[in-house]
Amino acid sequence: MQATLEVATDGRGSYEITSRVSDVVARSGVDRGLVNIFIQHTSASLFISENADPVVRKDLEAFMSRTVPDGDPLFRHTAEGPDDMPAHVRSVLTDCNLSVPVMSGRLGLGTWQGIFVWEHRHARHCRRLVVTVQEAK
Amino acid sequence: MQATLEVATDGRGSYEITSRVSDVVARSGVDRGLVNIFIQHTSASLFISENADPVVRKDLEAFMSRTVPDGDPLFRHTAEGPDDMPAHVRSVLTDCNLSVPVMSGRLGLGTWQGIFVWEHRHARHCRRLVVTVQEAK
Amino acid sequence: MQATLEVATDGRGSYEITSRVSDVVARSGVDRGLVNIFIQHTSASLFISENADPVVRKDLEAFMSRTVPDGDPLFRHTAEGPDDMPAHVRSVLTDCNLSVPVMSGRLGLGTWQGIFVWEHRHARHCRRLVVTVQEAK
Repeated sequence: MQATLEVATDGRGSYEITSRVSDVVARSGVDRGLVNIFIQHTSASLFISENADPVVRKDLEAFMSRTVPDGDPLFRHTAEGPDDMPAHVRSVLTDCNLSVPVMSGRLGLGTWQGIFVWEHRHARHCRRLVVTVQEAK
Repeated sequence: MQATLEVATDGRGSYEITSRVSDVVARSGVDRGLVNIFIQHTSASLFISENADPVVRKDLEAFMSRTVPDGDPLFRHTAEGPDDMPAHVRSVLTDCNLSVPVMSGRLGLGTWQGIFVWEHRHARHCRRLVVTVQEAK
Repeated sequence: MQATLEVATDGRGSYEITSRVSDVVARSGVDRGLVNIFIQHTSASLFISENADPVVRKDLEAFMSRTVPDGDPLFRHTAEGPDDMPAHVRSVLTDCNLSVPVMSGRLGLGTWQGIFVWEHRHARHCRRLVVTVQEAK
């Protein structure tokens, strides 16, 4: 089973999609297997991290902003703005796809795990994801 | 087929799990397909690297410790200790899940590849993994 | 369905494999599912990024060369040359496997996405990939 999701982003930062992925898993009727989430973009990405304390994601953002600074003179692909090439680097350092187990018909995440889209651009975007659910007999 | 594995960790560092994953693949009876390994935590992660010279993993650890230093004043999520937020960052920079081919009933790793859990916390932990094996006709 | 691909690399840099993966998907006859690409090496890796402006990949390389410098005195695994341990680090920071949706019998990439092998060594190599296509009913 395969579904597409659109995620409206409102500037750089992370957006939780756990419940939306969970809904696709429920609709699939798959009891045991894997769900794969794929993002069809090169300046936004996916990650799994703690979803209890929101400061964790602020610190992740702070770390990434320091490691891959906007407007870095190293970059020559600058026509689309100072945050464009950093967005490509940040995407490559994180993930464009995630596979999560489906167990007893539900997302097999750990207690503190959430699934997030990481928008790396400052402008608003609509990000398209493909969610594929597969049975494992 | 799906199985859970528990990996007891004894401080920061990497722990090879190749033979345990291999055992699950053998038990599954799958001849050709994929095995997915997923870690249900946000302060430990997975990676594949050389398993011949153990210095490789020491150097990986040295690089990561320098790039994401414990106690970095950048971080505000500090209630659980100076290694907690670095553990989340290190997990996001590496992998929470891996898919490896199953070929002729066995793990399709390259000659020098091993599968490892990377414990990012200094304290002992018990880490839970979900291993899912899927056939590809 | 599973196939192996060999990619001849001619020094550090990225090599597009989108059309070769696409060919495997077409041959598989799978209409809806996932294709997984796995690289059987620890000093070359995989990534998805923009394939329109080639400067993007030059900037990715420049960023990685600065972040993980060849000959870094931090490293002790140096017997195979100053680019060997950096190649292992770069591989762990990027991906050894990717899953991409198959939609209506074709690769479900976004408009600007391409799939690349990232050769991290300076010498020529022949890199072996395993491509596995799975149906999702």
